Amino acid sequence: MVDVSTSIDLSGIRAAHSRIRPYIHRTPVLTSARLNEASGGSLFFKCENFQKIGAFKARGATNAVLVLDDATAQRGVATHSSGNHGAAVARAAKLRGIPAHIVMPSNSAKVKVRSVESYGADIAFCEPTEQAREDKCAEVIKKTGATLIHSFENEHVIAGQGTAAMELVEDIPHLDVIMCPVGGGGLLSGTAIAAKSMRRSIKVIAVEPANADDAAESFRAGRRIVTEKKFTIADGLRTNIGEPNFAIVQRFVDDIVTVSEEAIVASMRTIWETMKIVIEPSAAVPYAAIIEKKVALDGKRVGIILTGGNVDLDALPWSYSPDR
Amino acid sequence: MVDVSTSIDLSGIRAAHSRIRPYIHRTPVLTSARLNEASGGSLFFKCENFQKIGAFKARGATNAVLVLDDATAQRGVATHSSGNHGAAVARAAKLRGIPAHIVMPSNSAKVKVRSVESYGADIAFCEPTEQAREDKCAEVIKKTGATLIHSFENEHVIAGQGTAAMELVEDIPHLDVIMCPVGGGGLLSGTAIAAKSMRRSIKVIAVEPANADDAAESFRAGRRIVTEKKFTIADGLRTNIGEPNFAIVQRFVDDIVTVSEEAIVASMRTIWETMKIVIEPSAAVPYAAIIEKKVALDGKRVGIILTGGNVDLDALPWSYSPDR
Repeated sequence: MVDVSTSIDLSGIRAAHSRIRPYIHRTPVLTSARLNEASGGSLFFKCENFQKIGAFKARGATNAVLVLDDATAQRGVATHSSGNHGAAVARAAKLRGIPAHIVMPSNSAKVKVRSVESYGADIAFCEPTEQAREDKCAEVIKKTGATLIHSFENEHVIAGQGTAAMELVEDIPHLDVIMCPVGGGGLLSGTAIAAKSMRRSIKVIAVEPANADDAAESFRAGRRIVTEKKFTIADGLRTNIGEPNFAIVQRFVDDIVTVSEEAIVASMRTIWETMKIVIEPSAAVPYAAIIEKKVALDGKRVGIILTGGNVDLDALPWSYSPDR
Repeated sequence: MVDVSTSIDLSGIRAAHSRIRPYIHRTPVLTSARLNEASGGSLFFKCENFQKIGAFKARGATNAVLVLDDATAQRGVATHSSGNHGAAVARAAKLRGIPAHIVMPSNSAKVKVRSVESYGADIAFCEPTEQAREDKCAEVIKKTGATLIHSFENEHVIAGQGTAAMELVEDIPHLDVIMCPVGGGGLLSGTAIAAKSMRRSIKVIAVEPANADDAAESFRAGRRIVTEKKFTIADGLRTNIGEPNFAIVQRFVDDIVTVSEEAIVASMRTIWETMKIVIEPSAAVPYAAIIEKKVALDGKRVGIILTGGNVDLDALPWSYSPDR
């Protein structure tokens, strides 16, 4: 693998943006007087829940699929994903008119399966383990000659994800802080490169569920640690941070803080009720850090990437909260 | 009462807009490629769910409170409301620094009571009947000398509500149709005056729950009919249409169609899932008419006022749907 920690820079992110611009939304940035008052800062929410396929993942996948040369592209693309990345790859392949093979765990949410199907992708189900996903995906690739579009360990995916922060820093001048969640680290590494390159003084703060805190642990230890995961409602963030992603994080990220499950649910509910927008649990993770006062905001201008809005309306987390 | 059916015109709506502009949001207009495809039209959603207090009601109440002369205003304002209008009057009174007395039925949703309280209003609870509300409100007014700000039978409220359509017609050229729900008819009458005055060719179509179809019945009969109401999930639309409002409707509205409860819930869910925004059941009523093909859209440009986003996240309508 290319050492993407040094191969991606702002010009690569700008090139990704030019490539994908016709196929994605330049999502709006929303503010809330009430949340500013509650937090003591000025918050700018980059609404990737309004993005194509309902999540920022459309950016990286579209870039990675469009960048392939024609001969390679014709053999198709493949990935494994239980969530938004699968839909994003399926959609990008449809845009390019090439086959997509999406490996999904057999316990994937129906809504996610339907979303991948709606783009005409070929779905291969597998056991719901990381190993089974990788094995099945390797098998599909061997059979079809498709190119793997990994959801975060891929320089073009990272560059594509970085375009959200690029737009945010362009649209909102003088940001002091930019915050996003971290799972595999695709979004975080792209965000960090874009933000630090465009505005040297900006602080990049990642937020991770305490129940899946491998990135925070790794950041503190100075080396990549793979941890056992407890359950987290933020299903997009259960992944271990990728190797190239962690290398970028070490260079460009200022801090990684963790939040409780309770704060994630409270954050999600507050954003729904106050801002009247639908976000998924993973997207609520940065504001959860503000609720738990894990970051000092006092008057700061803070950009927050709301990563997605794909949520099962029949299984909302507060339906199970003990205080009902 | 002034014959508001002839006293309100576009210049009154423009005056209302100038008066309230510093205190309300010019709400965004959102579109959805997916809903356009599903409907066969080009839909433009005016997002009053993002409005102050979470509903268009902030417009009319603010106008009606700000227009009072100082001596009158100092004696305070009063209204009866189980919902958004109460919060809107409370907020407007706070802006002006005058007392607000809000009569609320004893079974009002807690979230609505908290909202009114948060603006420092005085709340008087009453039995949950129309008569009890009016009696209690009259009593409060007699005691305090406050001015009644009726939620729809008030020319300044109507003019204020009309500013949403005014902005929509300004922002989106060449609309063929404008749609909004109808309950008491404050929004509908303001919308109809604004839209028809600004664009003579526009069709104004109101939508009403079939379970509370007095406006549709009245419209067909050519005279105001007060009907017995069945339950509707669209709690903002349970009211009978007001007298002055109906007079305006007869002059300016092209059609009133009705929709089923099932379609309202399906519409609400579709808008949440597709557009990633939180709207309340009443706001879902116009799109329900599109789902049920009560309006012919074929290629038309259709403005839809999404009236509000205040919803109890612990009691979402699909949680009780039989097909779960």
